[in-house]
Amino acid sequence: MNTFGKILRLTTFGESHGKALGCILDGVPAGLQIDEEFIQSELDRRKPGKSPLETGRKEDDVVEILSGVFEGISTGTPISMVIFNTNQKSRDYDSIKDLFRPGHADYTYYHKYGIRDYRGGGRSSARETAARVAGGAIAKLILKEIGVEVSAGVSEVDGVRAKEYDFEYAKRSKMMALDPDIEPLQERAIIDAKSKHDSVGGVVVTQATGLPVGLGEPLYYKLDAILAEAMMGINAAKAVEIGDGVDSSDLKGSQNNDPITKDGFISNHSGGILGGISNGDRVVVKTHFKPTPSIFQAQETIDIYGDEVVCELKGRHDPCVAIRGAVVCEAMMALVLADMSLLNIGKKIEHLKTIYR
Amino acid sequence: MNTFGKILRLTTFGESHGKALGCILDGVPAGLQIDEEFIQSELDRRKPGKSPLETGRKEDDVVEILSGVFEGISTGTPISMVIFNTNQKSRDYDSIKDLFRPGHADYTYYHKYGIRDYRGGGRSSARETAARVAGGAIAKLILKEIGVEVSAGVSEVDGVRAKEYDFEYAKRSKMMALDPDIEPLQERAIIDAKSKHDSVGGVVVTQATGLPVGLGEPLYYKLDAILAEAMMGINAAKAVEIGDGVDSSDLKGSQNNDPITKDGFISNHSGGILGGISNGDRVVVKTHFKPTPSIFQAQETIDIYGDEVVCELKGRHDPCVAIRGAVVCEAMMALVLADMSLLNIGKKIEHLKTIYR
Amino acid sequence: MNTFGKILRLTTFGESHGKALGCILDGVPAGLQIDEEFIQSELDRRKPGKSPLETGRKEDDVVEILSGVFEGISTGTPISMVIFNTNQKSRDYDSIKDLFRPGHADYTYYHKYGIRDYRGGGRSSARETAARVAGGAIAKLILKEIGVEVSAGVSEVDGVRAKEYDFEYAKRSKMMALDPDIEPLQERAIIDAKSKHDSVGGVVVTQATGLPVGLGEPLYYKLDAILAEAMMGINAAKAVEIGDGVDSSDLKGSQNNDPITKDGFISNHSGGILGGISNGDRVVVKTHFKPTPSIFQAQETIDIYGDEVVCELKGRHDPCVAIRGAVVCEAMMALVLADMSLLNIGKKIEHLKTIYR
Amino acid sequence: MNTFGKILRLTTFGESHGKALGCILDGVPAGLQIDEEFIQSELDRRKPGKSPLETGRKEDDVVEILSGVFEGISTGTPISMVIFNTNQKSRDYDSIKDLFRPGHADYTYYHKYGIRDYRGGGRSSARETAARVAGGAIAKLILKEIGVEVSAGVSEVDGVRAKEYDFEYAKRSKMMALDPDIEPLQERAIIDAKSKHDSVGGVVVTQATGLPVGLGEPLYYKLDAILAEAMMGINAAKAVEIGDGVDSSDLKGSQNNDPITKDGFISNHSGGILGGISNGDRVVVKTHFKPTPSIFQAQETIDIYGDEVVCELKGRHDPCVAIRGAVVCEAMMALVLADMSLLNIGKKIEHLKTIYR
Repeated sequence: MNTFGKILRLTTFGESHGKALGCILDGVPAGLQIDEEFIQSELDRRKPGKSPLETGRKEDDVVEILSGVFEGISTGTPISMVIFNTNQKSRDYDSIKDLFRPGHADYTYYHKYGIRDYRGGGRSSARETAARVAGGAIAKLILKEIGVEVSAGVSEVDGVRAKEYDFEYAKRSKMMALDPDIEPLQERAIIDAKSKHDSVGGVVVTQATGLPVGLGEPLYYKLDAILAEAMMGINAAKAVEIGDGVDSSDLKGSQNNDPITKDGFISNHSGGILGGISNGDRVVVKTHFKPTPSIFQAQETIDIYGDEVVCELKGRHDPCVAIRGAVVCEAMMALVLADMSLLNIGKKIEHLKTIYR
Repeated sequence: MNTFGKILRLTTFGESHGKALGCILDGVPAGLQIDEEFIQSELDRRKPGKSPLETGRKEDDVVEILSGVFEGISTGTPISMVIFNTNQKSRDYDSIKDLFRPGHADYTYYHKYGIRDYRGGGRSSARETAARVAGGAIAKLILKEIGVEVSAGVSEVDGVRAKEYDFEYAKRSKMMALDPDIEPLQERAIIDAKSKHDSVGGVVVTQATGLPVGLGEPLYYKLDAILAEAMMGINAAKAVEIGDGVDSSDLKGSQNNDPITKDGFISNHSGGILGGISNGDRVVVKTHFKPTPSIFQAQETIDIYGDEVVCELKGRHDPCVAIRGAVVCEAMMALVLADMSLLNIGKKIEHLKTIYR
Repeated sequence: MNTFGKILRLTTFGESHGKALGCILDGVPAGLQIDEEFIQSELDRRKPGKSPLETGRKEDDVVEILSGVFEGISTGTPISMVIFNTNQKSRDYDSIKDLFRPGHADYTYYHKYGIRDYRGGGRSSARETAARVAGGAIAKLILKEIGVEVSAGVSEVDGVRAKEYDFEYAKRSKMMALDPDIEPLQERAIIDAKSKHDSVGGVVVTQATGLPVGLGEPLYYKLDAILAEAMMGINAAKAVEIGDGVDSSDLKGSQNNDPITKDGFISNHSGGILGGISNGDRVVVKTHFKPTPSIFQAQETIDIYGDEVVCELKGRHDPCVAIRGAVVCEAMMALVLADMSLLNIGKKIEHLKTIYR
Repeated sequence: MNTFGKILRLTTFGESHGKALGCILDGVPAGLQIDEEFIQSELDRRKPGKSPLETGRKEDDVVEILSGVFEGISTGTPISMVIFNTNQKSRDYDSIKDLFRPGHADYTYYHKYGIRDYRGGGRSSARETAARVAGGAIAKLILKEIGVEVSAGVSEVDGVRAKEYDFEYAKRSKMMALDPDIEPLQERAIIDAKSKHDSVGGVVVTQATGLPVGLGEPLYYKLDAILAEAMMGINAAKAVEIGDGVDSSDLKGSQNNDPITKDGFISNHSGGILGGISNGDRVVVKTHFKPTPSIFQAQETIDIYGDEVVCELKGRHDPCVAIRGAVVCEAMMALVLADMSLLNIGKKIEHLKTIYR
């Protein structure tokens, strides 16, 4: 169950402290120019250690394409990408190999599988998201061909909220902040928590522009449902909102409906999706991340023998996973939209006639 | 794309004003006692017209099993269930056949498919959820065999929130309210909106108890991700939260992590899921529903020729979809959990040895 | 696992002696004219009792569309079709309810599921193929839009082989024979076997013409592989050949390769498929059917208690399943090709640009 | 569409002359001892250049596991395996880069994708089957845990047929011959063809022993149908037979039915499968391979500009693909059976009670 998507299918592999991680992206249309530098640049945006707001762990995350591209062009065959691990300090994890870190997947993996790779969370580590970003980069290249752009930024940290969303600014911000005026307060919240050996939660807003009407397959592959799955499946995500989301449950119908005119929708409470299908407006998704479970305070837990022990973590961890999580949100939305774009072709009988004429 | 699930697969069909709607539930293990009265009773909980808080439209929603059951026992073959439509007043829709109702799927279906069944929303109508409830009822029967129970209730209406959750009370409440003390205020909000030809949003909390540790398949069929997909795919859902959900993004790691003792988890901020896998604790999901888009006030819209027109709806509609939506939330969670229970078998090599010994 | 196809997905339900059988065909493009008379006429070609070469059992097999079609046009939503059973003589099966008929699925179903619907084979009955023919009829309507035609006929019965294939003649022949000169010998073989309370095997050739180059998805959804799956999954099928099939293993490369000229392939040993992808030439598939396992001679078997008993069948059965099987072969090939036609769209990046421009 | 299987899923990547090829095997149960030497030994059986009966091309085919195994044990996470290409002589292909080799996939890939990697067939090369063999090796390790063994051998070459099948001998034979008495004749046929710059076809018999009753999921994931898909999907396969296969269409029902006694089935015409489900008897599948399309004689063809040209191949090719194909047949059958073993768990409600008790 390590595959995501229907036509454009990302299958990932790899553990945080194994030899390598990577992915196979299957279903990429042939004839697409594969810009390797762009793929690497996306991984660079996600890689750790770029600022004090992130984990001090350094990983180069150099991606290598093993297949599916010939003379710079996609051939329609599966594109395999691999990232070899270079900076694994497995020793960091010796002290915790027999205990379950609170807030982590240790407990559930151990009981589900009867075995776990305890080094850095193994497969459950957010390090796996590097493979998603590699796949998402190619999804972005597909979307670019039809004029769709995806971007994300951090709207909230530790309860401190952006007042305005500037997605262009977020690209330059070292914490992917959406609001330059609020960013200093958010930054301070992170530094404060870090100094107290604690961590903070955060919220990411992801949007897509330039979408055609018609993406999303009712009834069980709706655009909003699959975006929810995609975002909730990212490590530490705990809530997903589409458009007005949580707020829409406090509204009246007369406030929430988006009126339609010749020039399009007057408002966008819906987040660009009606009946699970894109309406051509901006798609907007909010993802809420819990605070990083890895904190450097003593915590109560048990070990694999059932004994109660104190968990004292070492190592290097992001104090706020939402920051690097924003890059992953972009990747996941890009994968969903590219897949939906491919799935939507053929939904009218005219499409067949056009292609096979 | 009208199929939900991997091993236990629900495929639904039918339009609100067509001949019939129904489903095929495939993958039900053989040897399960199929209690038809229970299935019908679940449909009765969902059916409209039970109180003034719901649409005045009456539908008997009598379900008939066509296959897959022999002498009251499941045979392992697909169970097909059909509900014939008996109360379709297609005339109600003549006045809107050429225009797009704001907040509805009319616009997107029309542009995606180039055609739409305008009678009552056709396939996009919430009437389709009757088929989900029928399938969900059988999922509940499967779960019962392993001690899992699913229940839901309305926590919030028009911003009026329950202070405590009493799932037993919700079963008796005519609006599935979780808090009997708050229920009168919530009821008033609905009646008020209705009298103003308007509608209100609401929130449903769905929980499962008795779960084994280990349900959920990392990394792209995580329990939380698929619950998010399942809930967000219900008509009018706009946000999904797992455990503390939105609130967890405001917490510190030291507040949010659930400490573990010999007797289990001390708290349940996580909502019973760690790393996408059930941890044995109560699974808790919140689903936010927007206000019903069908309101009886004049609204701006356009018609299929692109002309601006005023939309004046007639017919009968729920003023708050969250109420009957709560029954659908239960069904969807049951389908997810039963599917996950089946998928989880075979994840240890010991399972194979046990079964094939 | 009662679903066939990736984009065009047929899900069937129903037992031979239950209330009804039918299917949901999902993924039909919107805007297709659904000719109900044609669908019924396809079912009429398959229905039993049309000649003494078939079972004497009469079934009207009247198909009813329950959803997915509005004013005669497909809407892109799932098309559900149901056939109510009208002529079930369950009494015929009382004598065999506790024993396993040789050559039938009784033994395997009973052990796999721990229960079986013994009436006429239940789900394992070839009666289920009526649902395939209904779905296949719509697949043919899709294919017609792009100029593809599927036809089949019986080439061999009891070892008596056609010398020439006349697919037009097969349409008129009461035993779907491909060679009018050989037909009388084949007919005699069937009548002979029937008079001896025995049955005979047969071979069906199925072809498609008018195919575009490019259908088939390497490497694990190849056109030939999926045709093999489709045909081998029909009741009583025991071998499938593509193009020269079995004979090609006796040839030299210099004999078997099809030379290519400006005007196309000079020969068609390959059966129109290279590397799992259609080459534009005629696709040719041979399906070998075993003799009907239901014979009216005493046979050794055991019962569900493990005791050895003599099996003496009553009832009405086809003496040669290949005849009506030919109609099912057409349906399955049509389903495969329509699915592959839909899947192939989007394989070039130009397709996306064309559709979304 | 580069994924095979439902629960045990093999996804492969790689071109014959790219950097590497490999696979991700997902769904391997946790707790399985992963014997890397065994995996390598399986690849060694398939690798080219072991005898004059094979291509002279040498490839070491050293497999490396990148993930999914911790301290020698499977963890339940995806197992990724890579084989770096070391002996690619792309120059061999310069002369054919613009033309379509008869009998090859060049023509169809070019037209389907608008681009092709012409070096050695690229993705369509049989070199990809190394990844299948790696995955199949792990499938064999799973099957071993439940007592199932898969083996294959060459029964026929250039029309010269084995009279008896000795699967133990085939393991030692350098051409995987099933009949030591016939082997010299078969070997001579290959050498003869090779000396005439030609190639020969062949037939492989694959069997499985020790199977439980119950593998195979009706109606559209039947054991025989999926074995047919698996075998027909191997490069150069043109026909697949189950049990008596082609011969069964010449038999009477009274000859073909396998009588059942207390001690099991008296005969095995069915090839161990009834109604698409294993009956506990030996599963037997025959796969017919066409002669290698790469021959060293002048052949008529066209180039990508549509001009007629003469194709004169160089390079090194197997004169009979059935030999190395036999190892691939084993791998594919092992993958199917392991997947079916996993799928079958949970088909009785008792399974759930047993596992979750």
